[in-house]
Amino acid sequence: MTDTAIPLSELSIPMYSGVPTLLRAPHRESLEGLDIALVGVPSEFTLYRNGTRLGPNQMRAVSAMVRPVNGETLLNPHELCTVADVGDAPVNPLNLAATNALLQEYYESLAAADVRPVSAGGDHGVTLPILRAIGDPDSPVAILQIDSHHDTHGSIFGEPDNHASFVRRVIEEGIVEPTAVFQVGIRGTLYNPNDLDWAREHGVNVMRAEEFFDIGLERAVERMLEVVGDRRVYITIDLDGVDPTIAPGTGVPEPAGLSHRDCRAFVQALGEHDVIGADVVELSPPLDPTGGTARIATNLLFEELCVVAAAITRARG
Amino acid sequence: MTDTAIPLSELSIPMYSGVPTLLRAPHRESLEGLDIALVGVPSEFTLYRNGTRLGPNQMRAVSAMVRPVNGETLLNPHELCTVADVGDAPVNPLNLAATNALLQEYYESLAAADVRPVSAGGDHGVTLPILRAIGDPDSPVAILQIDSHHDTHGSIFGEPDNHASFVRRVIEEGIVEPTAVFQVGIRGTLYNPNDLDWAREHGVNVMRAEEFFDIGLERAVERMLEVVGDRRVYITIDLDGVDPTIAPGTGVPEPAGLSHRDCRAFVQALGEHDVIGADVVELSPPLDPTGGTARIATNLLFEELCVVAAAITRARG
Amino acid sequence: MTDTAIPLSELSIPMYSGVPTLLRAPHRESLEGLDIALVGVPSEFTLYRNGTRLGPNQMRAVSAMVRPVNGETLLNPHELCTVADVGDAPVNPLNLAATNALLQEYYESLAAADVRPVSAGGDHGVTLPILRAIGDPDSPVAILQIDSHHDTHGSIFGEPDNHASFVRRVIEEGIVEPTAVFQVGIRGTLYNPNDLDWAREHGVNVMRAEEFFDIGLERAVERMLEVVGDRRVYITIDLDGVDPTIAPGTGVPEPAGLSHRDCRAFVQALGEHDVIGADVVELSPPLDPTGGTARIATNLLFEELCVVAAAITRARG
Amino acid sequence: MTDTAIPLSELSIPMYSGVPTLLRAPHRESLEGLDIALVGVPSEFTLYRNGTRLGPNQMRAVSAMVRPVNGETLLNPHELCTVADVGDAPVNPLNLAATNALLQEYYESLAAADVRPVSAGGDHGVTLPILRAIGDPDSPVAILQIDSHHDTHGSIFGEPDNHASFVRRVIEEGIVEPTAVFQVGIRGTLYNPNDLDWAREHGVNVMRAEEFFDIGLERAVERMLEVVGDRRVYITIDLDGVDPTIAPGTGVPEPAGLSHRDCRAFVQALGEHDVIGADVVELSPPLDPTGGTARIATNLLFEELCVVAAAITRARG
Amino acid sequence: MTDTAIPLSELSIPMYSGVPTLLRAPHRESLEGLDIALVGVPSEFTLYRNGTRLGPNQMRAVSAMVRPVNGETLLNPHELCTVADVGDAPVNPLNLAATNALLQEYYESLAAADVRPVSAGGDHGVTLPILRAIGDPDSPVAILQIDSHHDTHGSIFGEPDNHASFVRRVIEEGIVEPTAVFQVGIRGTLYNPNDLDWAREHGVNVMRAEEFFDIGLERAVERMLEVVGDRRVYITIDLDGVDPTIAPGTGVPEPAGLSHRDCRAFVQALGEHDVIGADVVELSPPLDPTGGTARIATNLLFEELCVVAAAITRARG
Amino acid sequence: MTDTAIPLSELSIPMYSGVPTLLRAPHRESLEGLDIALVGVPSEFTLYRNGTRLGPNQMRAVSAMVRPVNGETLLNPHELCTVADVGDAPVNPLNLAATNALLQEYYESLAAADVRPVSAGGDHGVTLPILRAIGDPDSPVAILQIDSHHDTHGSIFGEPDNHASFVRRVIEEGIVEPTAVFQVGIRGTLYNPNDLDWAREHGVNVMRAEEFFDIGLERAVERMLEVVGDRRVYITIDLDGVDPTIAPGTGVPEPAGLSHRDCRAFVQALGEHDVIGADVVELSPPLDPTGGTARIATNLLFEELCVVAAAITRARG
Repeated sequence: MTDTAIPLSELSIPMYSGVPTLLRAPHRESLEGLDIALVGVPSEFTLYRNGTRLGPNQMRAVSAMVRPVNGETLLNPHELCTVADVGDAPVNPLNLAATNALLQEYYESLAAADVRPVSAGGDHGVTLPILRAIGDPDSPVAILQIDSHHDTHGSIFGEPDNHASFVRRVIEEGIVEPTAVFQVGIRGTLYNPNDLDWAREHGVNVMRAEEFFDIGLERAVERMLEVVGDRRVYITIDLDGVDPTIAPGTGVPEPAGLSHRDCRAFVQALGEHDVIGADVVELSPPLDPTGGTARIATNLLFEELCVVAAAITRARG
Repeated sequence: MTDTAIPLSELSIPMYSGVPTLLRAPHRESLEGLDIALVGVPSEFTLYRNGTRLGPNQMRAVSAMVRPVNGETLLNPHELCTVADVGDAPVNPLNLAATNALLQEYYESLAAADVRPVSAGGDHGVTLPILRAIGDPDSPVAILQIDSHHDTHGSIFGEPDNHASFVRRVIEEGIVEPTAVFQVGIRGTLYNPNDLDWAREHGVNVMRAEEFFDIGLERAVERMLEVVGDRRVYITIDLDGVDPTIAPGTGVPEPAGLSHRDCRAFVQALGEHDVIGADVVELSPPLDPTGGTARIATNLLFEELCVVAAAITRARG
Repeated sequence: MTDTAIPLSELSIPMYSGVPTLLRAPHRESLEGLDIALVGVPSEFTLYRNGTRLGPNQMRAVSAMVRPVNGETLLNPHELCTVADVGDAPVNPLNLAATNALLQEYYESLAAADVRPVSAGGDHGVTLPILRAIGDPDSPVAILQIDSHHDTHGSIFGEPDNHASFVRRVIEEGIVEPTAVFQVGIRGTLYNPNDLDWAREHGVNVMRAEEFFDIGLERAVERMLEVVGDRRVYITIDLDGVDPTIAPGTGVPEPAGLSHRDCRAFVQALGEHDVIGADVVELSPPLDPTGGTARIATNLLFEELCVVAAAITRARG
Repeated sequence: MTDTAIPLSELSIPMYSGVPTLLRAPHRESLEGLDIALVGVPSEFTLYRNGTRLGPNQMRAVSAMVRPVNGETLLNPHELCTVADVGDAPVNPLNLAATNALLQEYYESLAAADVRPVSAGGDHGVTLPILRAIGDPDSPVAILQIDSHHDTHGSIFGEPDNHASFVRRVIEEGIVEPTAVFQVGIRGTLYNPNDLDWAREHGVNVMRAEEFFDIGLERAVERMLEVVGDRRVYITIDLDGVDPTIAPGTGVPEPAGLSHRDCRAFVQALGEHDVIGADVVELSPPLDPTGGTARIATNLLFEELCVVAAAITRARG
Repeated sequence: MTDTAIPLSELSIPMYSGVPTLLRAPHRESLEGLDIALVGVPSEFTLYRNGTRLGPNQMRAVSAMVRPVNGETLLNPHELCTVADVGDAPVNPLNLAATNALLQEYYESLAAADVRPVSAGGDHGVTLPILRAIGDPDSPVAILQIDSHHDTHGSIFGEPDNHASFVRRVIEEGIVEPTAVFQVGIRGTLYNPNDLDWAREHGVNVMRAEEFFDIGLERAVERMLEVVGDRRVYITIDLDGVDPTIAPGTGVPEPAGLSHRDCRAFVQALGEHDVIGADVVELSPPLDPTGGTARIATNLLFEELCVVAAAITRARG
Repeated sequence: MTDTAIPLSELSIPMYSGVPTLLRAPHRESLEGLDIALVGVPSEFTLYRNGTRLGPNQMRAVSAMVRPVNGETLLNPHELCTVADVGDAPVNPLNLAATNALLQEYYESLAAADVRPVSAGGDHGVTLPILRAIGDPDSPVAILQIDSHHDTHGSIFGEPDNHASFVRRVIEEGIVEPTAVFQVGIRGTLYNPNDLDWAREHGVNVMRAEEFFDIGLERAVERMLEVVGDRRVYITIDLDGVDPTIAPGTGVPEPAGLSHRDCRAFVQALGEHDVIGADVVELSPPLDPTGGTARIATNLLFEELCVVAAAITRARG
């Protein structure tokens, strides 16, 4: 049989062999004894080109290439923690509000079992029920958000809890500290020049893509670390933060975004922080003919897994 | 300028030239003086692979090849009637119930203006608000339904008014006469051997694909005509009724379905009937790399236009 | 969690949700209590365009659409038998002989546990070690082989045990009765007009594609049943037996082959036979941009599962 | 080295190996001693979607699969005749009239050397200069034309010598006997119901696709043989005669056309005729993602080569 | 109905909804009252891989994502000026000279109506008739040309007025001041080391890609502004100036070109100049499977629209 | 006819015309009088996604765009040396050891004829028999290796002579001086943190991708020149050294690699060295839908040809 607790070497089991799981972690149905759950969230309530519901299984397929040891940090999260692919969180494909309720309940069960989630989306709306489940208004968290959009609309098409409004919601609900939100990669044409006022008025730290290119990666990472401070932090990566020429597989691509290396540097920079969870969202496989976007998605998911595993290890003392 | 009331000849204006419209009809924003409205319906509330929201504009793009004269019947619907592409009906991408309400209201405005709709979907759920708008419980209509699924589920994920339940709804609401529904192409694996009981118990005429292949096209068309009788009829073509090896661009493809010629024959056979409207639905462009499914879709949309135009012409006397 | 012993309904769990397995069977690592093992065999030692090593996982991905009940026979193999996806059999990507040895050993372990295999290839060479493991020279079996090639070459590039020679090997080794081999779909250009002599000289029943089209499906199936008689039978489907216009995703496509319906009819016709195992091989996902070949592959795998499950059920009495 | 006069066996040289030529014939720059020239004609003056200029080299690439012996007739044209790929005929990509002149001159050099051409297009306009070069008004030939269009327009965009007018030109010029032209597969929507009058008025034998389906392949072939009689015959296959669901790679696809088997049967039926040349045209590789259209094209090119080789062999006595 | 004078918000009308137009501008057939015409030019007389005739409608399809407000400059050209998509300019697909004449006449009608053109090609040859129509030898203009080729060939295949010669023509005809031409992105292999002599001898300012990378974007933009001076300027962007790894959808891609950001910076730098017109050319949709090249094309077309709208606004005082 | 000794101008023969050869060099079957052989090596013994056997002919197809003169150095290798495409080296698709033996024998025949090879792979395993054939333990060479992997595994799946072990083999066999090996682009996740120990312990100069990005291209090239010194040098480019977002067409892509320009700079920097041969390997056409990876591959092959031609020219004095 081909599955074990630790991903096996391609030198004895080919990468293309075996039932595919997220980051080749073992497939487990129980949360017992687990430190980190790799969760698929096949949700999709989007506004332009679609396909995010197929994201989790495409990440499983492409995960085959991600080996267990981080090439830069040499850390092996599968050795540090008990990690499993727990399958997909429940969704209702026909009803956004019902999906949000199902997801919140699901992630509350993870929180109750003290399992940290690293999630593979799904549209960006999933970050809202995740934070509602694992966040705490008494101890608001910081957020590293790589994205091309603010996601601070009041509501869209009459729906308040959607993928373009989630940041506003979690700030309004006190789960997240607005001045500890760091958004990087923001760009693109607008419907209204005032679209970004809400974020700025509430003290959200916005680094537009052009500003990022001007100051460079190193200083941008420093700025992010200043914003986050020593708070607990959640990482959310919307793949449209990445440049669409290298990550075409996402619904609303905006020109001139970040590179894979840029994103990786932001995540690795949180290697000493208490990262309570993380996600990579908005992968749309039908728009990704070479699988390149999925490859970026799974490698960033692995970087997120590494910093969450490091945080758990440190917390154990 | 390149647009005129009657589609122009490729001998003087290339097919690839001009703002694309459905069947190269003129683009008009007013219903005044119109006999037939070609309507895009970019709805999408589906259960597996998606993309139907992009269907109407893909049909516009591929329509360029459909010339104004029917090669078999030599009828030119653009000469018989005033036909226009009126743009897209309104939808709410995040809310199924809201979409159904918007669509019903929109089609009621067409009915009020005495304009018959030929619609390019969108998912199969759109047929429900269309029939609610243009149907009449005092005078239930017949339906020709080319499809691989019955679409008679009670509800799905808690939603009664969805693309897999619409036939049941319009029968329950008395808009459609169950014994005058002819479903052809039904096939595929099932969750439960009783999935088709409701349709049969209510007298719906079901011709499974295997039965169709056994008796052949000619007799199947005769059987359809018997079922429909002399009732007013609505035509709905779910592209998954077509064989998925030739029409891959649809969300839930089932093996071994009808050919393009089969579908065309069923539509042309209604050339003497009072066809009150028609649709072609469930085109998913991202799943259709060669555009072949869109080509089938637009040619069938043209056949539908022809029989609706013939019906209006006869009604005028 | 999303996996259970019986594939769940799309009405409550979406088809696109959950870790993908062959025919949505549960993923199990132990053979204990199992009647039928769905086995992936990611082997690849081919002669033209490649990709078969990716076949098993593509079948897992596309399997999502195959529901548990057969639409024609209404049989549910998951209820009749204990069925699981046991993962992939071991292969050595760099050495054909080593792969043959690994596979034979693996299938011997299934035979020892009295588990019948339904295998998802991999190249057609896998049928050789399977038959060596589960066959018995004291009781040679019949074979239904859907294919465009005889696979009776003496050897190729110096290798006797390869995907174009396996039929000759199993006949020479006495595991298969030559006069009980039925090959259908044979066609294509040749290097030598004598390429098919060996098969005919040894009494193999060859129905070329042209002969099949001439006599029609019904009589062809009757002929197959005559050849097989009441012997135990193994079913092997090389996807290049199917017409390449509908199944492009295979390495050596030959024009003008069988339809999905034709193949299904041959398999279903063995519903009363003692089918000891079955396979679908030569799926090459990179050559299959719409997934249509994979869809045919998985639906035929399901038909094979149904006849194997029926055989086990009858054997139990 | 990998090239020889006779295509080599895949059993010793892989199909994917070697500089690609049409039908794996040797590549020769001189006409000396040649019986049949396989000629690429990368012309393109088309009216809708394009790509035919890339047709010849795509046929070279896909030719790798065509082995030297015909699977139905067991004839090996490479043994009967001296056959070579002579490269591409000259074209001027910017000027249609100049291209026609270059092509006519080129084919006159073949005729002067008594070499029969089997040509890989290019758009259908190439048949005009070919027939002008090898035809003879004193001895007009018959034509087998598989096509969805008549190609009898007076002129298009002011150009008389184009791919939609060539049949009219060769009849007007007396090179072809109109009553010995057999057109099969004609279909599709029209700009004007009179578009086909010219062909019928001049006695061209038109078998529309619907008529073909009604009477069946066998009788259609008989009808073709009656039309051709014992005249010398030229074969021209426009790939849009084939059904676009199986041959999407062509510029102006019309629904519901012929199968590969149908086309093959028409060509093979001329196995006893004096076939003076042949072509397969209108392959557009960018529209053919699976290469399936190219596969049909090259297999039909091989069938054409076989009947031309048989004609030369008989002529030698 | 879904079309209005100003592109609507995705918050109430989905981006995928409505008849597609260039940059979601209203579709108008009359020039009356118009400041800026967005014109499709589906021309194609090219030398290698083709598809540019399909460029304008692909830009219409992909335009859906471009919102009305520039994210960097916050300028809304649809508010500053009256902008419409006027459909496609006329072309003759079979005759280059005829196409040039048709286009020149068409653009002269725009000039007569004092409407500035922003054009979506089509091959680069379209810039020649445009400049002949809107240029004036008494007041030669400057040109910003982003391109990988000089386009200064004397003639090609006997045709002087083609897409690789247009720069030479407009200089020879005195419409453009050679020392005010700035070419950036020039690169690629050559047939002859002297291919670039003509440009240099006539004082054209050529910045090869390697020189651009050496000095960096900021200084390159400064150099461009020096060359252009305070002249009236026309902007022409050949998409093969962009790096082909991010813009594969163009006929003759050369390695190692400019980024989207680079191109945008050059256009934005002309925000204070009198820009008399602009184009984006050489988009070939069949070569652009992800639509990424079209996305770059339409975003640059929007940047061009912004600087033309700013120029008109300033001119009004 | 379209082939000549020196690639012809697109101004008189279109790029898309003629039998395709590597870099449009003439196709020759004899080595006589040759200075440089362009050799296809369609080998494939790989560990994840495959397709390299189709690499050589894809490079032939895409070569059409590479003109004879280097745009940066203005050198024309076809004028300096006699260059031909000699077809493909022999391989055994089913047996790795047999393939290695066939290749070594083939390259020994080139060495015996004093012809330097520039090879188009094929998997990276081909570099081993090439170096065994043209190397000399008495005079070990330097290597410039652009790659994402060290290729220093002891053995894989029991095979010592494979594409992931070749560097170790040629060092162990004394053909290559370990301290004169320069590896650049190394990166990616690992199975074991010690995977790179062997290379470092033996003095191989490893520049990981991150280190390359830190110090920049200019200093990296200097470092390479220090390592190589004045030794004879062989250049091997594994396309997975290039960033997979621009070169997706390779079997085991690792995120965040080199650009085309980076690779070109390393090759051009060896323009004064005695380059004894070179290769570009691991192109997998099925994974390269836009042909972009093949375009990079052929342009780098041309750069290699240039430096080999320069070396021969200098050697002649």
